[in-house]
Amino acid sequence: MIYREPLVIETRGRGTFEITREVQQVVERSGVNEGLCHVFIHHTSASLVVCENADPTVRRDLESYAARLAPDGDPSYVHDSEGPDDMSAHIRSVLTLTSLTIPVAGCRCDLGTWQGVFLWEHRTSPHRRRITVTVTGGHP
Amino acid sequence: MIYREPLVIETRGRGTFEITREVQQVVERSGVNEGLCHVFIHHTSASLVVCENADPTVRRDLESYAARLAPDGDPSYVHDSEGPDDMSAHIRSVLTLTSLTIPVAGCRCDLGTWQGVFLWEHRTSPHRRRITVTVTGGHP
Amino acid sequence: MIYREPLVIETRGRGTFEITREVQQVVERSGVNEGLCHVFIHHTSASLVVCENADPTVRRDLESYAARLAPDGDPSYVHDSEGPDDMSAHIRSVLTLTSLTIPVAGCRCDLGTWQGVFLWEHRTSPHRRRITVTVTGGHP
Repeated sequence: MIYREPLVIETRGRGTFEITREVQQVVERSGVNEGLCHVFIHHTSASLVVCENADPTVRRDLESYAARLAPDGDPSYVHDSEGPDDMSAHIRSVLTLTSLTIPVAGCRCDLGTWQGVFLWEHRTSPHRRRITVTVTGGHP
Repeated sequence: MIYREPLVIETRGRGTFEITREVQQVVERSGVNEGLCHVFIHHTSASLVVCENADPTVRRDLESYAARLAPDGDPSYVHDSEGPDDMSAHIRSVLTLTSLTIPVAGCRCDLGTWQGVFLWEHRTSPHRRRITVTVTGGHP
Repeated sequence: MIYREPLVIETRGRGTFEITREVQQVVERSGVNEGLCHVFIHHTSASLVVCENADPTVRRDLESYAARLAPDGDPSYVHDSEGPDDMSAHIRSVLTLTSLTIPVAGCRCDLGTWQGVFLWEHRTSPHRRRITVTVTGGHP
């Protein structure tokens, strides 16, 4: 059995936005008891990560790390048609994930205790981001 | 239902090679209407990425970024049996993807407007690269 | 058909631990002949990679590369509640993988000749790591 549902997330500009609950709600609506949950983001300047969700300083450090790893407005970039955060956003996306898959057990995403699923917006301005959640598996 | 097909891509040395059309053709031949399309590359010195496919300067910048992030011939590398691009190719592969999964809707890979699937050859010389595309899901 | 089995791996501190055989054994026990094998790690300070498994210097170089890419105890980190390897472990996890999927053909993971699946422990002390392997597909 295959169940698919779109999610639309309005970001407030660069940063990580937890979507664990939204993904979990799709799993519940799917009626799938045992299987897999696939999350896909339809963009190349925002991405997905599974990250520690307890202490917000982890994601603050991740953000400042990414800013050093792929600096905005690096003079070596040729592609800057949408501004200094254009190419850095593509690099940050390529180094993280466009899709991820999580086991489903007992009608729930079987994440670790400290794992959350996050949309990582890499552009500095707010964007409307489209995600597709696909749940496959069986009923009890 | 499960449909699997191999793809062989002859690269011309380091660079990104778009395989979106080849992957899409496998989805069409699979007859799967709704489901998931999994792409796997059977190598550790070439990888897969989903990237902006409109402006080629994005991939040119990605290439020069990767060359800075994991330089060829870094004196710290112990592993250089196949030349200065041997270890850098492994690092570039580990930082990108060996496998990716895309939703299938209406017999098509449901990619975003600007998303393309690329094989990223990390070795400087041409290679013959083996990919397996697996499509799972249902008929209408 | 869906088959799921947990794996518990006791790491000896930071480093790569090959789990290809353990994953392959789950595929055999699943009875799935053709399909996909999904591997998920339930942690945010250890991750998964597919890497060259023939020459151990590859993984030694990967380790020293990661130590330079995400240094322990970087003064810019705010999050250090579990020590200097706490935040670097989260960064290393985000830059690698929490989940990966491998084609199954003829009751085996269809990996390339030099591909191995590794758990990458990013913490310096030994940890007990929980993995879930899910095999989906069909019988002959």
